[in-house]
Amino acid sequence: MCGIVGIFARSYVNQTLFDALTVLQHRGQDAAGIVTSEGNRFFMRKDNGLVNEVFRTRHMKRLVGNLGIGHVRYPTAGSSSSAEAQPFYVNSPYGIALAHNGNLTNAEQLADDIFRADLRHINTTSDSEVLLNVFAHELQQLGKLNPSPEDIFAAVAKVHQRCQGGYAVVAIITGYGVLAFRDPHGIRPLVYGQRIVNGQAEYMVASESVALDTSGFAKVRDIVPGEAIFIDRDGGLHLQQCTQQQMLAPCLFEYVYLARPDSIIDGVSVHESRMLMGVRLAEKVLKEMPNHDIDVVIPIPDTSRTSALEMAHTLGVTFREGFIKNRYIGRTFIMPGQTQRKKSVRQKLNPIASEFKDKVVMLVDDSIVRGTTSKQIIEMARDAGARKVYFASAAPEVRFPNVYGIDMPTASELVAHGRTAKEVGDYIGCDWMLYQDLDDLKSCVTQLNPAITAFDTCVFDGQYVTGTVDRAYLDRLEQKRSDDAKNPLNNADPDADIDSDTSADLHTRIE
Amino acid sequence: MCGIVGIFARSYVNQTLFDALTVLQHRGQDAAGIVTSEGNRFFMRKDNGLVNEVFRTRHMKRLVGNLGIGHVRYPTAGSSSSAEAQPFYVNSPYGIALAHNGNLTNAEQLADDIFRADLRHINTTSDSEVLLNVFAHELQQLGKLNPSPEDIFAAVAKVHQRCQGGYAVVAIITGYGVLAFRDPHGIRPLVYGQRIVNGQAEYMVASESVALDTSGFAKVRDIVPGEAIFIDRDGGLHLQQCTQQQMLAPCLFEYVYLARPDSIIDGVSVHESRMLMGVRLAEKVLKEMPNHDIDVVIPIPDTSRTSALEMAHTLGVTFREGFIKNRYIGRTFIMPGQTQRKKSVRQKLNPIASEFKDKVVMLVDDSIVRGTTSKQIIEMARDAGARKVYFASAAPEVRFPNVYGIDMPTASELVAHGRTAKEVGDYIGCDWMLYQDLDDLKSCVTQLNPAITAFDTCVFDGQYVTGTVDRAYLDRLEQKRSDDAKNPLNNADPDADIDSDTSADLHTRIE
Amino acid sequence: MCGIVGIFARSYVNQTLFDALTVLQHRGQDAAGIVTSEGNRFFMRKDNGLVNEVFRTRHMKRLVGNLGIGHVRYPTAGSSSSAEAQPFYVNSPYGIALAHNGNLTNAEQLADDIFRADLRHINTTSDSEVLLNVFAHELQQLGKLNPSPEDIFAAVAKVHQRCQGGYAVVAIITGYGVLAFRDPHGIRPLVYGQRIVNGQAEYMVASESVALDTSGFAKVRDIVPGEAIFIDRDGGLHLQQCTQQQMLAPCLFEYVYLARPDSIIDGVSVHESRMLMGVRLAEKVLKEMPNHDIDVVIPIPDTSRTSALEMAHTLGVTFREGFIKNRYIGRTFIMPGQTQRKKSVRQKLNPIASEFKDKVVMLVDDSIVRGTTSKQIIEMARDAGARKVYFASAAPEVRFPNVYGIDMPTASELVAHGRTAKEVGDYIGCDWMLYQDLDDLKSCVTQLNPAITAFDTCVFDGQYVTGTVDRAYLDRLEQKRSDDAKNPLNNADPDADIDSDTSADLHTRIE
Amino acid sequence: MCGIVGIFARSYVNQTLFDALTVLQHRGQDAAGIVTSEGNRFFMRKDNGLVNEVFRTRHMKRLVGNLGIGHVRYPTAGSSSSAEAQPFYVNSPYGIALAHNGNLTNAEQLADDIFRADLRHINTTSDSEVLLNVFAHELQQLGKLNPSPEDIFAAVAKVHQRCQGGYAVVAIITGYGVLAFRDPHGIRPLVYGQRIVNGQAEYMVASESVALDTSGFAKVRDIVPGEAIFIDRDGGLHLQQCTQQQMLAPCLFEYVYLARPDSIIDGVSVHESRMLMGVRLAEKVLKEMPNHDIDVVIPIPDTSRTSALEMAHTLGVTFREGFIKNRYIGRTFIMPGQTQRKKSVRQKLNPIASEFKDKVVMLVDDSIVRGTTSKQIIEMARDAGARKVYFASAAPEVRFPNVYGIDMPTASELVAHGRTAKEVGDYIGCDWMLYQDLDDLKSCVTQLNPAITAFDTCVFDGQYVTGTVDRAYLDRLEQKRSDDAKNPLNNADPDADIDSDTSADLHTRIE
Repeated sequence: MCGIVGIFARSYVNQTLFDALTVLQHRGQDAAGIVTSEGNRFFMRKDNGLVNEVFRTRHMKRLVGNLGIGHVRYPTAGSSSSAEAQPFYVNSPYGIALAHNGNLTNAEQLADDIFRADLRHINTTSDSEVLLNVFAHELQQLGKLNPSPEDIFAAVAKVHQRCQGGYAVVAIITGYGVLAFRDPHGIRPLVYGQRIVNGQAEYMVASESVALDTSGFAKVRDIVPGEAIFIDRDGGLHLQQCTQQQMLAPCLFEYVYLARPDSIIDGVSVHESRMLMGVRLAEKVLKEMPNHDIDVVIPIPDTSRTSALEMAHTLGVTFREGFIKNRYIGRTFIMPGQTQRKKSVRQKLNPIASEFKDKVVMLVDDSIVRGTTSKQIIEMARDAGARKVYFASAAPEVRFPNVYGIDMPTASELVAHGRTAKEVGDYIGCDWMLYQDLDDLKSCVTQLNPAITAFDTCVFDGQYVTGTVDRAYLDRLEQKRSDDAKNPLNNADPDADIDSDTSADLHTRIE
Repeated sequence: MCGIVGIFARSYVNQTLFDALTVLQHRGQDAAGIVTSEGNRFFMRKDNGLVNEVFRTRHMKRLVGNLGIGHVRYPTAGSSSSAEAQPFYVNSPYGIALAHNGNLTNAEQLADDIFRADLRHINTTSDSEVLLNVFAHELQQLGKLNPSPEDIFAAVAKVHQRCQGGYAVVAIITGYGVLAFRDPHGIRPLVYGQRIVNGQAEYMVASESVALDTSGFAKVRDIVPGEAIFIDRDGGLHLQQCTQQQMLAPCLFEYVYLARPDSIIDGVSVHESRMLMGVRLAEKVLKEMPNHDIDVVIPIPDTSRTSALEMAHTLGVTFREGFIKNRYIGRTFIMPGQTQRKKSVRQKLNPIASEFKDKVVMLVDDSIVRGTTSKQIIEMARDAGARKVYFASAAPEVRFPNVYGIDMPTASELVAHGRTAKEVGDYIGCDWMLYQDLDDLKSCVTQLNPAITAFDTCVFDGQYVTGTVDRAYLDRLEQKRSDDAKNPLNNADPDADIDSDTSADLHTRIE
Repeated sequence: MCGIVGIFARSYVNQTLFDALTVLQHRGQDAAGIVTSEGNRFFMRKDNGLVNEVFRTRHMKRLVGNLGIGHVRYPTAGSSSSAEAQPFYVNSPYGIALAHNGNLTNAEQLADDIFRADLRHINTTSDSEVLLNVFAHELQQLGKLNPSPEDIFAAVAKVHQRCQGGYAVVAIITGYGVLAFRDPHGIRPLVYGQRIVNGQAEYMVASESVALDTSGFAKVRDIVPGEAIFIDRDGGLHLQQCTQQQMLAPCLFEYVYLARPDSIIDGVSVHESRMLMGVRLAEKVLKEMPNHDIDVVIPIPDTSRTSALEMAHTLGVTFREGFIKNRYIGRTFIMPGQTQRKKSVRQKLNPIASEFKDKVVMLVDDSIVRGTTSKQIIEMARDAGARKVYFASAAPEVRFPNVYGIDMPTASELVAHGRTAKEVGDYIGCDWMLYQDLDDLKSCVTQLNPAITAFDTCVFDGQYVTGTVDRAYLDRLEQKRSDDAKNPLNNADPDADIDSDTSADLHTRIE
Repeated sequence: MCGIVGIFARSYVNQTLFDALTVLQHRGQDAAGIVTSEGNRFFMRKDNGLVNEVFRTRHMKRLVGNLGIGHVRYPTAGSSSSAEAQPFYVNSPYGIALAHNGNLTNAEQLADDIFRADLRHINTTSDSEVLLNVFAHELQQLGKLNPSPEDIFAAVAKVHQRCQGGYAVVAIITGYGVLAFRDPHGIRPLVYGQRIVNGQAEYMVASESVALDTSGFAKVRDIVPGEAIFIDRDGGLHLQQCTQQQMLAPCLFEYVYLARPDSIIDGVSVHESRMLMGVRLAEKVLKEMPNHDIDVVIPIPDTSRTSALEMAHTLGVTFREGFIKNRYIGRTFIMPGQTQRKKSVRQKLNPIASEFKDKVVMLVDDSIVRGTTSKQIIEMARDAGARKVYFASAAPEVRFPNVYGIDMPTASELVAHGRTAKEVGDYIGCDWMLYQDLDDLKSCVTQLNPAITAFDTCVFDGQYVTGTVDRAYLDRLEQKRSDDAKNPLNNADPDADIDSDTSADLHTRIE
């Protein structure tokens, strides 16, 4: 998962880009990057690290100009952990920088095509570099010295034809303007807003509406699937549908876990959808165990709090904060001659014993992936004195890999892959395992916006809405993950990576 | 406020100290330090920054030894913002390193005495350096080549006689052992625990019991006021009361705000005391406005969540998360020729409009200090559509400075200084201002441990339990703060400070 | 001035590139860069700073592969001081990285042509980026999926047709091999060598033969003007003349000052040529002042030592080291509220008084540019007690700017511009000013290799061998320098540049 | 070897200290430190690295005050390679910071005494920390609140009684002034100078007179053996002889190799003494081989150039620069799985073949220690075509360890230990080995200042002028070196040390 933002303003945009990336930081803490443009020069800073670490005053001073794009990265399924920070850049044509959120499922084929057709070299395994080069190639084919918005939209249309997968994209075309577009299924979110400064309009495009809120942009609307938005260097706003086969099928996992609760995605408040998830869970409890003996509902902080609260309310059961999250993440040092200590959930969560002692507790989490964390949490609850431990997941069983930009383990690592809910419950050690039904989950969103009729639900049901993901692709994906794990470049001396105070400067690599 | 930890173990203690400091990070994000000792050598690393930033592998490799102490710092009223990181060190006698949480109210007089009596030079304005030199002087006076635990306790007794204020202290005496002690009023917390590793006892002393929990130490008990604990180099445990005038008067603000909810301080669960604070607030609502029209209770995250939840429950009113906290704190860059933008609460909190729209909301915070944040929050609630905004503070009016180690503005900056609750409410713009009564607040703690009969409540009532704080001292304090603000060393080029690689400071804390 | 190197080996080339750049460091201390290639990936590290500062172990670990190029930079007349470090990179076609030593006199026109013809964006003012894009464009025009050596040489031929100026170039074509070529006049030096490792040939191309010596490569020969050398990925060596109008006119200043004395350039030992310069100077002394009263000949270290020694020998006069050079260059800190102290020659040179006391001294320097340093040196000699101070320059009057890659002040800043030798002597304050005659200087080289019949002597006589430099160009150059000096981006807070430990990363690179 | 400087001025001394340390950098490139003092506060910055690396603007800003001391370190025989950077600091009495050049031969005994007598803890193996604590102890014994110059000199006198070895010391007594003193034999150099700024005197004390020259201080005179100089906080100058057994016996090696040629030590120009060394060598040639066949005299740069030049002149033989020194020292990276490459002299020196081809060359070096470098140089000369290679050393055979502050290998590693000159010649492979006679060497200094009647010549003849060095001490020294080599703390990951950009900050600073 990643977060993106693009801005056109009437004064320097570096601070606003920085603020927006900070607000989108939950979508990726791995790397960050900003490109701005002034006249026909552009300026870039990107590196591994949090937004606050990557951008220092000395960098901000260089990031001049009234247009810019930004990115925060979470390594995606389609790119190895050593993948480069975004944005990426090509100097031909015009000088284009691009960043995206999502994943292309035909990136390898595209990389090969691009090399053969245009001799364009792709130096990383990042599909962003591929996407950029496809776009650059298509734009170059038009051969315009001064590309019009129509030319640019034509190139986007070609991208939609050639690229398969989910993607929300921001780009700068040096000297011409800021571009953003969303894939034909609208899998990844993209929204734009406007603010008036000194009587003149300024625009922001971002992954989530919270980025607009914090900088004073009023949300205009979501970018619809297949649509592109281009703000030219004079502030002219251009919107254009660039595909004929669009269909809105947003990623359901955004509502469950990825997005901030205060965001509104495709017309649906994430917060309200999560409240409904709690209501549905309660209804399932009442259906499956009408005489339940639940004493207290306890969330696994932070995401599931909203659902757990409404679940408790609907059940008429006490809601309590039973786990305290350690906000400051520690680290285990590998000393010479030592082997790495196993990371424990105890480093992250601490139970408040009095909330568990002699009680039947219903723990609520947003979802279960590998199951190892849930297992440890349940042990902690029992150690704290719980009489019985029930476990509810606001999302259905996660059984399949995600190929549209969310980093998920391979199928074989998913605890629910090949297991029934009951078997998962046995594995993680709870007395009752309660999963949300997929239809119930969908209803939490559609109830708030009936216009949404389809979702990307691949991690739950293995249905890939783009229709282009086959067994062979998934096998390659699994193989790739396995190879990545063995590649020393991806597993270099952890210390070197973590410790290097100037990790910054070893980036900006072309590798 | 600060956090401290001391450990005696049978193997290297650097990682465990690191883990403990991480868990205590909420007590100070300004600087961190560790001293370990092996044989008759000691090793120190300290710097400004978060724990995760200050300690890198290259430092950890040097921090060898089975005994050690650690510290996280929040600048206190008694030391300027440029005060050095702790621990401090003197080489005479023995080589002693010391760190503390608290504040000495007679530090200046002591510094002068020490110089005159012992020619000891104090190079900073930190009272920790003073405390260390008083202790060192007293221990040196005994002139023992091999100090016994009794010698060490005798020196602690002298410290109690000479030092006024609140302090919880950890120290290493190179070659001899780890020492910790708590002031005669027990104003600042200190607890110790034990774990058995390979059949041998290991000990940890720390500011809060959560530090014990996370590293597998079982809490033994709180260090009582005036008591000292010394673990010698062979693991022998020595405990000794070192004063005759002890009286337990713990800081009430620890329960309200400072401590982690999952800590147990002087026998009282912080979490449970906060639940009671919510109950008392609800009772006051029902008393003052029996026919209240509150639609929803909304906490200002994170501290007040526990109180707000129980308040809502007691009132029988809906509880909702209406504000989302931005976990990644941004930063405002000062570009050449720019003036600093005003920091906005919008950078930290974002309202969920649907929870406010057309509702009468009761906002709950743990306390109100300057009132500026509360004012902005109330504006946000109104902008989000609230029909009426009520505001409850789990703590009574904060009207006086703290002199025992909590960094507070001077009296004149406190919104409740010279204002009634009603006037504060008018100032911050709420429709109803509800403060907890001080007796009610005390009862939230004494109800859970009736053995506590007194508290440090100075910020609420101006009563200083040590009996040594007069008008003149408070005036000097106010003057000092004013001077510090003007001292260029404390206000050096913000960029230089913020950007320097070890600034540690600037970083993206998760709150 | 810059230094370049390219290597094809049978094992990783990073260390050998590093060693070669260290040996070439005298050609540029401003920035350094290395690109290596393995398979179809390439790896880059470049930054401002000395070779030893730019490359750390963590960078070297990433620079894998058996082929690579390297560069050390001295800011050239054609690029501003904020110009990017080299090598530069384009991803289309193939992925090409390129670095060069020299300067293109038609870079602006080329940049414009490239944009119009191929929409290629040039983001810096560096002519290296232009040169790379011209080459890339020409290679792309051929449209070969697998370019043959002939294709590559064809593109080089086009470069020769389009690019005017002096340039020695190294490049990597990812997946294909290492390329190097020299401009049709051979203004800047380029030499190649070979070594046999385990029975297999390895090759190095470098600016100076000393780079070959230190890594055990035996010099094969100079690359002749207009020639290109390409070593393919299998180690196949290809050499090709790529122009029909070649003419050897090496830069005379290389022999006077730029090159290391132990290098052999175009068949001439720099050391021996400098010895002859001393002999010629002596002969001129004897001609102009047969009854000279010189007591001692003293060189201005280090370059002029060789000439001064032979001059003394020829004159039969004592030679002495009268100035000691400070090997560790200091720095002046700008404290808040201070203005920068004037830099003094005293920081760099210290006289030994006994060598000057009551003597008639003949000081010898390689050349005189602005004259300010010479003036201070002469003052120092007088302060040390010299009875008379004569000053000899091994090079003739420097009166014109260099446009082929040596950073020189504009004409108006040159002390000899518009001044006779006598007037220069008056200006710098010596009792006798002795300049080498240009014909004598040429003879010092031609005597050692009669095959050289022409030189680039533009700084002395304003004759530009490429025939393409007109008044308008020189005016633009002068204007540009003046503009650069005023551009805040080129004159950012000097401290920020010098102090930032990661100054590396503060440059907005596009890579 | 180390370099020291102390300054009293009327304005901030940080820049002048920095400049002086840069000029003294040849005396130690391993670490650097500065302490300044203002009012009763002092400020310290020290770290491993060159002066230019250790002090950045952010440090300089903190180093306020009109008095200060500085130090550059070369690891000495008496302290392990992991020894701390200087100055060292104790806070009792007064706050004293101290740095020195030299070595105490009874440091271990003193450390033990100090602990027993005063409970003072020594945390490193540095004899500087010992020296500081001896001085601090003696000063504290006097128990003065306001120590007078006489008190301070009394403490210095005690230091002379207790400390054995060679030492030149600078110190700051916070709030009182700057102190410097030289051991009773004057083994290590110390000189002071004065400059008048705005009518007021300012003072500098330094290891070498060149530090005075560069900052505009006029040399007053050498500090004589056993003498101390103290400049109080008001600028009052106090000089006092603090021992009764002084005897001037300066280290002869300073003239041969350590000092800068432009320094004047104990009244003798180093440059002139080196010229005489060349004359004496020539005389020995003429005596031993009246019909010598030497074609050319070639120095091994840089130190021996002066001697070689006069040797050639006296012999009437051509002098030539045959080796070019690489000014930019490279580095060998240890890649994963590699073993370190042998360092080659080829990295440092490159021969100019034409100067060797078919000639009988006399190479001149200042001295021969291990012989490995000489051996490689002779090989290079032969490879370059020399017909015969003679080798002259300006110093006699180095056969014994130095215990007064020069880092030398143990006796067994010295090539001349147990070998005749002839045997050394055979070992290093020359055709004739010519060593200076010790008496001749002495005469090169005494001829210029007949007042010097004794020298520390221990490395040549094993005579230790302090009379306190016995077999047992030398054995311990040899053992210690061997142990140090095995201590992992002294041999930590070389990369961690070299690469860590902020290695600076891992040192426990007191500032």
